[in-house]
Amino acid sequence: MRAAIFRNGEIVVDTMAEPVPGAGQVLVRTLACGICGSDLHARKHAHRMVEMSRFFPSRKPMDLSRDVVFGHEFCCEIVDYGPATERRLKPGARVCSIPALVTPTGPRGIGYSNDNVGGYAERMLLSEALLLEVPNGLSPQQAALTEPLAVGVHAVAKARIAGNEVPLVIGCGPVGLAVIAALKIKGLHPIVAADYSPARRALATKIGADIVIDPARSQPYVTWAEHAAMSDTEKAARPPFQAHLPALKPALIFECVGVPGLIQQVFEGAPRDARIVVVGVCMENDRSEPMLGIMKELNVQYVLGYTPEEFAYSLRLIAEGQVDAASLMTATVGIDGVSRAFDDLANPEAHTKIIVEPWR
Amino acid sequence: MRAAIFRNGEIVVDTMAEPVPGAGQVLVRTLACGICGSDLHARKHAHRMVEMSRFFPSRKPMDLSRDVVFGHEFCCEIVDYGPATERRLKPGARVCSIPALVTPTGPRGIGYSNDNVGGYAERMLLSEALLLEVPNGLSPQQAALTEPLAVGVHAVAKARIAGNEVPLVIGCGPVGLAVIAALKIKGLHPIVAADYSPARRALATKIGADIVIDPARSQPYVTWAEHAAMSDTEKAARPPFQAHLPALKPALIFECVGVPGLIQQVFEGAPRDARIVVVGVCMENDRSEPMLGIMKELNVQYVLGYTPEEFAYSLRLIAEGQVDAASLMTATVGIDGVSRAFDDLANPEAHTKIIVEPWR
Repeated sequence: MRAAIFRNGEIVVDTMAEPVPGAGQVLVRTLACGICGSDLHARKHAHRMVEMSRFFPSRKPMDLSRDVVFGHEFCCEIVDYGPATERRLKPGARVCSIPALVTPTGPRGIGYSNDNVGGYAERMLLSEALLLEVPNGLSPQQAALTEPLAVGVHAVAKARIAGNEVPLVIGCGPVGLAVIAALKIKGLHPIVAADYSPARRALATKIGADIVIDPARSQPYVTWAEHAAMSDTEKAARPPFQAHLPALKPALIFECVGVPGLIQQVFEGAPRDARIVVVGVCMENDRSEPMLGIMKELNVQYVLGYTPEEFAYSLRLIAEGQVDAASLMTATVGIDGVSRAFDDLANPEAHTKIIVEPWR
Repeated sequence: MRAAIFRNGEIVVDTMAEPVPGAGQVLVRTLACGICGSDLHARKHAHRMVEMSRFFPSRKPMDLSRDVVFGHEFCCEIVDYGPATERRLKPGARVCSIPALVTPTGPRGIGYSNDNVGGYAERMLLSEALLLEVPNGLSPQQAALTEPLAVGVHAVAKARIAGNEVPLVIGCGPVGLAVIAALKIKGLHPIVAADYSPARRALATKIGADIVIDPARSQPYVTWAEHAAMSDTEKAARPPFQAHLPALKPALIFECVGVPGLIQQVFEGAPRDARIVVVGVCMENDRSEPMLGIMKELNVQYVLGYTPEEFAYSLRLIAEGQVDAASLMTATVGIDGVSRAFDDLANPEAHTKIIVEPWR
């Protein structure tokens, strides 16, 4: 079969062996697979991902001298079943799955693995136990957006929302947009979001942001504060020793950029007692001032991935039209277009989410 | 009056003008004042404290070309009252106070200020509204330990303890010991603590640690895990997608060292989903791997200081004998001994808390 393969730091098109489903596995045809920012990071910083693996002895690190097929945001069609399967869904049924295979020794990831081919290939293997049927009528492209939406749903779930916070989303790429969508579902308003790109700001508004900020024109934390004033009741309820502090509602800041320096920038801008959720995946070593965190008593929650329940919930949100996932998709490409798409995604004005259709 | 003064990066003994109490203020004689690790840091990194002030426009930064008198862990004796005071306590009464003065524009710190003299001077000014009477019979040395204990009480309060966590305290200096004492009061067991110093480990046991680790002999996180095994009920309650992970109770790690590299070390050793409370005050720029935090979904709570309620509660804990604060004190010195005491505190075998008695 054909695949866009990560080989020697580049994405190349080649043929590879047809996958054969093992016990409990399903052979599927990849209908649509989103290109994730982490794939772009991984192309550049794969050695860092391998380096980090040493802290996770249960994970098998990628061998970068061997081929890897990225792609973990997929919607597929069932082709055939391996042994020891229940075969509840018919061949031809459209399915999603968290990007993992169930194995006797725990889950193994799909997409950053030498063994488990990701969605930038014509066919791949999934675990029957993890299959979610795509509700009738939902396009494969939309269903493939389940995974990035689940990242936002999980980040918001980990944020321990009490209901009185005013959120600020830093960066409106796919991760920031998923966070905004999940915040909207939670009913937390106003949702304040910041991005340098006009196209991304327009998308942020479309998906649920109430106030969008261009950091080139105004300081995000100043604008945030204008929308975070305490009510008189909240002011009256403050302990006396805090009476001299600015009367602002709790800040809930989502860092959705994931490049070095960003966390320090948030530390500098954040108000006292802010909670920061780090959703952007920074793969490089970073510098910060712990003393700023200390003096402001900040809380930082790092997050990654989602639970199977959050993933299934995200598919339902898209299927029920509660999240307009389709608005994130800016192009579709075939296997031959993946390498070019990686480069094109560097321009936030042109693209947000490019979907690979390996069957084209 | 005489004082140990921070001048040109050194602690020197000199005389200075007698303080005169203003409206709402009290002139007090300093009976005992603990030397805090932050004072040692400040002697070395005072310019960093000034630099950080730019993020806190309401705080007046120290002018390092002018004198500063450190000392914010004090017990004093009332000498005289300024105008507009209620004078509820008689001259001679022993008092503690959070190290701050009430002013019309909010609190102003005592101890890192050109204007407000700290406890390494014969006399100082306090705000009448903040005075806490020292319960009868408690020695000034013990009462002076209220402040460092309050730091531990606050750190534990900010840790959002649910009751099923197993705490690990990294570093058993005064901050770590205060955290251990506060954890013991909360009834959270076993309390695991680590320090390279035998003297500090002995103190940790005395003040409430159940298991003490010498990191030179065994890996703290491995030993912690041996004492953090889930019960069968807890194991059974885990979601299926976590069944492959080590069956450990939630980790609650207190970083009580405060030097560069420590947070990264905790990131490397911490188990998945650990909560980290940063109590040690690192005044230098630091490096870390955000990706480790992300892959483990760590939570970092930076903390500083305490509330007035936590401070008053800490004084009660000592007065009621619930915390054996006196065991932390390893020496007392007069004003002439402060500079030498700063150097002596570098040796954890020799000293934990040195108390300055400026009247000597």
